[in-house]
Amino acid sequence: MAAIQYEIVETIAVLSESPKGWTKELNLVSWNGRDPKYDLRDWAPDKEKMGKGVTLTSEELYSLKEALNEMD
Amino acid sequence: MAAIQYEIVETIAVLSESPKGWTKELNLVSWNGRDPKYDLRDWAPDKEKMGKGVTLTSEELYSLKEALNEMD
Repeated sequence: MAAIQYEIVETIAVLSESPKGWTKELNLVSWNGRDPKYDLRDWAPDKEKMGKGVTLTSEELYSLKEALNEMD
Repeated sequence: MAAIQYEIVETIAVLSESPKGWTKELNLVSWNGRDPKYDLRDWAPDKEKMGKGVTLTSEELYSLKEALNEMD
């Protein structure tokens, strides 16, 4: 499998940390040198491995924010 | 690969829809009959296939909401 190049441009929030040190984070990540996207996923300590996650456009992030604010 | 059983208990928000009809959704999903968790991922039309995504506890969702409200 070809390597995926990525750069964490900005860590916006660390949502949680597991007993083994994996963290669930909202970051701004550039994949393969492209424009950065918002990205929500789990990361191993020192960012050595990544878990599954989703990337979000700024529009999707805004919709998510609106939805969360409408919840109880 | 063994089948994963899931039930979408509640659709909280549809964040976007791609030209092919895939939607990025925040749902409350029960996996393998367990207590439902918040879940952010892409779904094919009619929920026939799912993309990669993340599950979130209510605490993580709250942290995410707080982080989004602090952003510009």
